[in-house]
Order: sequence, then structure tokens, then C-alpha cells
Amino acid sequence: MNQLIIKNALIVTCDKNHTIINQGSAIINNGIIDKIYETDSNNDFPAEAKKIIDANGKILMPGLINMHCHAADSLFRGLVENLALEEWLAKVWIAEKAILTPKTTYTGSILGLAENLMNGVTTVMDMFWYPEETASAAKKIGMRLATGGIFFDPPGVGGRTQKQYLTEAENFFEKYWNDDFIIPCSMPHATYTVGETHLKEAKILAEKYNGLFSTHAAETIAEQNDIKNRYGRSVIKHLSDLGLLGSSTSLAHCVHLNKTEIELIAESSTSIIHNPISNLKLGSGIAPVWECMDAGINMTLGTDGAISGNDLDLWMALRLAATLPKGFHMKPDIVNPKEALHMVTLNGAKALGLDMALGSIEKGKKADLILIDINKIHSVPIFDPITHLVYSTARSDITDVFVQGKQVMGNKQIKNINISDTLEEVKLMSQKIASTLDGENYG
Amino acid sequence: MNQLIIKNALIVTCDKNHTIINQGSAIINNGIIDKIYETDSNNDFPAEAKKIIDANGKILMPGLINMHCHAADSLFRGLVENLALEEWLAKVWIAEKAILTPKTTYTGSILGLAENLMNGVTTVMDMFWYPEETASAAKKIGMRLATGGIFFDPPGVGGRTQKQYLTEAENFFEKYWNDDFIIPCSMPHATYTVGETHLKEAKILAEKYNGLFSTHAAETIAEQNDIKNRYGRSVIKHLSDLGLLGSSTSLAHCVHLNKTEIELIAESSTSIIHNPISNLKLGSGIAPVWECMDAGINMTLGTDGAISGNDLDLWMALRLAATLPKGFHMKPDIVNPKEALHMVTLNGAKALGLDMALGSIEKGKKADLILIDINKIHSVPIFDPITHLVYSTARSDITDVFVQGKQVMGNKQIKNINISDTLEEVKLMSQKIASTLDGENYG
Repeated sequence: MNQLIIKNALIVTCDKNHTIINQGSAIINNGIIDKIYETDSNNDFPAEAKKIIDANGKILMPGLINMHCHAADSLFRGLVENLALEEWLAKVWIAEKAILTPKTTYTGSILGLAENLMNGVTTVMDMFWYPEETASAAKKIGMRLATGGIFFDPPGVGGRTQKQYLTEAENFFEKYWNDDFIIPCSMPHATYTVGETHLKEAKILAEKYNGLFSTHAAETIAEQNDIKNRYGRSVIKHLSDLGLLGSSTSLAHCVHLNKTEIELIAESSTSIIHNPISNLKLGSGIAPVWECMDAGINMTLGTDGAISGNDLDLWMALRLAATLPKGFHMKPDIVNPKEALHMVTLNGAKALGLDMALGSIEKGKKADLILIDINKIHSVPIFDPITHLVYSTARSDITDVFVQGKQVMGNKQIKNINISDTLEEVKLMSQKIASTLDGENYG
Repeated sequence: MNQLIIKNALIVTCDKNHTIINQGSAIINNGIIDKIYETDSNNDFPAEAKKIIDANGKILMPGLINMHCHAADSLFRGLVENLALEEWLAKVWIAEKAILTPKTTYTGSILGLAENLMNGVTTVMDMFWYPEETASAAKKIGMRLATGGIFFDPPGVGGRTQKQYLTEAENFFEKYWNDDFIIPCSMPHATYTVGETHLKEAKILAEKYNGLFSTHAAETIAEQNDIKNRYGRSVIKHLSDLGLLGSSTSLAHCVHLNKTEIELIAESSTSIIHNPISNLKLGSGIAPVWECMDAGINMTLGTDGAISGNDLDLWMALRLAATLPKGFHMKPDIVNPKEALHMVTLNGAKALGLDMALGSIEKGKKADLILIDINKIHSVPIFDPITHLVYSTARSDITDVFVQGKQVMGNKQIKNINISDTLEEVKLMSQKIASTLDGENYG
């Protein structure tokens, strides 16, 4: 039996009751959390334990779930600046088409996924042009990844047809439907880039494999106007009428929703993926997080890609999810830190259909865990660990990351890759990347 | 001659023209920047140089200026949660009165100032109950500090009378008016806690010493209503009518301003200190940063105290200053990163009346400098260093800090104090701190 014991931790379980264990231990057998108990360092642990980690001075919590990312877009971090989504996307696609191949997508995926991992994210939902490459990168690093075939009607990267996208998406499901680390999804880009027929094909495919469906939705006012002009209805009504909402659907952004749309999302048990960093920087707007929570919607969080963000700091997204609604509505008591912390843990797991397996530290769940140093200058004093996690924790505080009981980051070092090699490789590419837009849009 | 040379750096000067030197060196003599030039590692440097630092792979920029802080309030980080400013302040004052003495203020000041330093801040403007203690802490750490006597009409910490506050404030000016590191100020708390007579006394005192005047202003709607009820005019009109605006005045917050107030601030060359993290978390609102910039106001940035914040991350404040207006107004091209970066550098120096001496890397200025590691996973690629500084830099990227040419942080270690001792001391105090409010307001 492969056993891991993490002892003496301040455990923030992120379970439904927000249980905290001030000094506790977790026993992990074959990647599954087998026992959690209050303890002190004098406890006897099974002699057969292969590995015992003393987490004194650290918080132990579930690995974070980043529900919306374009990891390989980290290659273009800071390339396209000061533009609204629509103009921005036009530039992004020029740069992507010039640079992206399966090989460069792999490199970019390593870069973006490794940044997620360094920040304590153990599961990423990623949408990108060559999902096989992103899946390979996740396997290499040892992370959990939800991704799958993209659907995109205009000529996209690699010049593939919609039929090719469909085939690739089906092949992805076929390959990964029973994988322990890759969670296959159907990923049409958006209602403004994918027509009704292909949106429905994507959904049918997801249903065939009992899989997930995720798309960008209601990100800007221009998008809402565009869909209204084309179809005579709002983005969410359009998705609803096409039968695309439901508990296996997650919608990235949802910045501009009317009351009916909020109701449609709530009634259908669809999840929302809030991406505050991207929404602010692209000038998309401020999402109605509080209103959506009030309607009972399962709210999750994403970083979006570093091409909009310009990094993948899910801790900052968490802090904004908790504070932006307070500031916007001038109500300091809305979006409690407990509710906010669930957005990056249990709610993410629920959106993935995996809340029985991920998102909290509970017996029988998979041991996707992180350790957080709380002996930092910004971590003292701590009166409530959840308040600390939401309002004071820095991405650099994460020291150790475990996925399914296996340590993939230890003492701030990623175990399975040499990240310096990736950084050097990307630096060598950067002049070529800059030349794609003649440097016109940054700075 | 005491000489320091920093070579091979990517220099972001933060001067008026936003000059960047891709690979440059700075020669610092006796704490003053003497020469900046483009260079490579083969350059000959003066043989008498005591210290040469190779900053290859790092950005060299001016130390950040945090224009609004209550450093010692870090003792109460996370103690009072989910309340609006007015109710929150009532609780804060209970906790402060129970805990604060000159000695605990010194400890708290070390904690808060050291967090600033770790984040690359070399100058802090701080308002607190025992400014002498905060000044001692700044001297100990080796930072630059703007602070001075507080003015407060209700019974405050230590039960001092307004006459005592005035005497203490005058003594502070007398002691520090010619100090190289302490910049003395008059610091009345706010128009709602200090009456007209005492506000004017504070201003007269500042003028006597050609010093600065800083106060909280227009933070909430409740405050505006309160002042309107008492004086029949808005907060800024009230300050203006009392003759308190001007180029040596800086106003913290300014979240709620009407058009007339923005004009009054602009016309009088008063500086605004924007504190977005605090304003969001306390539900104070979203400040009209863009409108104030548009009016030509000198915009600076602050963290506020960690009791509202809940940390002192000026990098996050910077990122929010640049992105919150974009999201709020749905205009991605407002608040250019260059303008934003000036808020924590040159504009701060201007608000302190020290733009000839601080805030940019220019010949003849004081060598308050920081080095930033750009060989991080979230720092690659970089197409424009300023974009990187505003949107991707993490507080943990700062490796070295120099104040007036003296290294006060090296390789992420603060030189002049043992921060572990402070952390242990604060941890020992934390139970007593928690008991002041019976744990009712956190979590």
C-alpha cells in the first residue's frame, strides 16, 4: 500500500460545514484520503507509512480548482493590451495562428499549467486549440485537467474544418473517458463563433460520453447585442433554447445577465465560472456575482488565460470574487469568505460532476491537497484561517502540492519537469511572438 | 566615498518619459544616483567601488511609495470583518484601545513596515496613534517614513486631549523637520472626527514647518451625509472652505466625490491617495480614479492598514488601480499602465513634495531602489516591462531593496531586524488581541 501521512497541519477542509481542524493529520492510502483526525505530534502512525510530512506551521487544504484557463496562451502574456474583447480577440487570433503548432502548444501548456501548479491549483479546466497537447502537458506535470475538443466555425488555428473539430473532440472523449486525471469535455468557443448546429453537435457528443460542456457566455455587452441581432434572444436564452444548459454545463464569464438569464442558469443547475481579473482588464464589466449567488447558482472561479489576465493568480481571483461585489454594491457583508473559498474548491468540483471525489478534505475523496506556509510576514496574526486564505494569502505561500496522493511540488519546486528549461525555451520564442503583431499592441 | 554599482539591470526609470534601459547600470555615490547608462557586463567600473551587484535577470526600479498605511494595525489583521467603515471603526477602536501602548505600537509598526519593505516599498506615509514609535521602527528597519502627530477629537487611544495631540504633533515636527528619513506631517484623522478649529490648528502647524497635511476624506456615502448634516457642505468643500487643500495636502480614499469636489481637488493641486483594496473590502465603493485623472489630479496609491485590507500588498493595489476603472467603465484603454506605475512612484514623490529627490531613477535623486526577479514562471515572456510590473508582478518577486543607497533587504532577507522574533512576539499577543472583541467579528 502506498501511504502518505501529513501531520500537525491546520486543516481547512472546505467541506459543506467549513470544518476546520486546528491541529490535525490526514492519512492517505493509495491516493485516497482515508482518515482525518485531530492529533498532536506524539501520535503513533502506522509503521508501514512510506512518507510522513510534518506540516507544522502550515495550512492543509484541498488543491484549488481553476475552472477557466487557456494555459498555452501564457506564450502571449502581455502581447495584446488596452483593447476590448472583440478587437482584442482579432489580434489574439493573428498571433495564435502565427505561432501555434502542436509542439508550441505543448510548451505553452507546460508554462501555463506549471504556473497553476505553483499557485496551488491541482485541477484546471482548459480550453485550447490542441487539447491533446495540453493533456500531455498535464500528464507530464501530474495535474488533473478538464479539457477536450474545441468547436469553432471561423477558420481557426491549424485551419481545421468543423468536421475535423468534431472528429478530434470525439477522439478525445474516446481516449480519455475513463482516465483518472483527464476529464474530457465538449468545448465550443462561444455562441458568437459557433452556430446552432455545431453547438448542438458538441452537446450531443458530451452527452454520449456523459461528459461536460463548457463555453464562453455573456462576456460583453457587444456579445449580447450580437446574439440578439442574430437570433432575437439573449445569449443565455439562446443556449437554453438549444438545450445546452444543465448540471454538466459551465459558462465562463456571465458578466452581462438579465434577470431571466440568471433564472435560466439557476433553474437548470448550470455552473458559472467567474473570471474577475480578465473581466476587469478587458473592460468587459463587473459580473453580478452576488445576484447569481442569491439565485442559488453554483459559482466557480477561473483565471482565464494569461493573454488577458496577465497571469494565472487564482488567489487574486478569489480575493476579487469576495471583495468586488462588496465594493460594487457597497455592502461589506455579502460574499462571505467561506462562500468565496468554496468557489475555488467544492463548487469547482461540483461543476466538474466530481464533488464526491474532489474539492474538500473528506474521507474517501481523492488526495488533491496543498500546503500553505503561514509563517509569513503577511500571515501573522491569524484569527480565522478562512479569512486568511481569502484576504491575505499570496500565491507564493504555497509550498507543497499533492495530486491523488502523489507529491508533484515540494518545497516550491515542481517535481516532474525542469521549469527553467521551459522558461528558456519561451524566452527564445518571444521575439518571434512579438513580431506577429509588430509590437503594435503592447506597452 | 561610499559607492554602490548595480549593473546589467533592466532599468524602468519611472521618469516623466517612462524611459526604459534594456541593459543598464546605475552608479550610486553616497546614497545619490550619480550615473545611469546603457552597459554590458564588460564595462569597466571604478576600482574604488565598494560593492557591485550584478542584476542580470532583474528589473531595477525606484522603491514604491505607499501613501496611506496604518502599519501597526497589522496586529489586528483579520480581527474585524464584514462590517462597513462606521461600524467597523467602532470595533477597531475598542480593540486598539485595549491593546495599544507605545511598546505594542512599536512591535506592530515593525510588522507592518517590514511587510511593506518585503513588497518593495521604500517610503510609507503612515497615520497612527504613536507616530514616534512608528518612526523608531522605520529607523530600525532603514525605511523612509512620512508620519506625524494625529489629531482626533473623541477620546482616542491613550485618552489624550486635543491639546496633548497638538503638543505631540509640534514636538514631532521639531524633532524631525530636518531628518533625512522621516518626513513629518500633520495628520488629522478625518472631518467627522476632528472639528473645524482643530483641523485648522493642524494645518497651521504643518505650514509653520513647511510640512505635509494628510487626512481621510470622502471614504463613504455615510461620511458625506454626516458632514453635509453638520456643516451643510460636502467633505471636500468643507476642507476647501477651511483652507486645508493645496499641494502639500493628500487626501486618503476620495471614493465619493461630486464634480465640484473633483474640481476643488484639481484646482488646488491636492493629491489623492487611492486605496482600492480597502475600499472594496469595507464596501466603501469604487473610487472615480479615471475621472480624477482626467481632471489632472495627482493620483497616488495606498494599501491602507491590514486591519481593513487584510495585507499590505501595494502591487495588488497597483493592479486594481489600473484594472478596476477599466472594468467599471467598460473601457479597456483607460488608466494606461504607465500612468498607473507613476501612482506608486513619481506621483507619490510629488505628493510628498519630494519629486526632485524620489520616485524615479534619475541623476541626482536619492537611491531608493528595488530589484525584481523576472525569471519567474509568471514573468515569461515579457514584451513590455511596464505592462509586466503592473499586471503580472507578485509581491514575492522583490529580491533586494535599497534606501538611500544602503541595502536594507538582500536576497529576500530584511537586514536590520530579525523578523522571526517579531512574528513570534505577535503570535504570543494574538490571543489577547482576539479577546478584545470576544471573537465576535471575525470568520
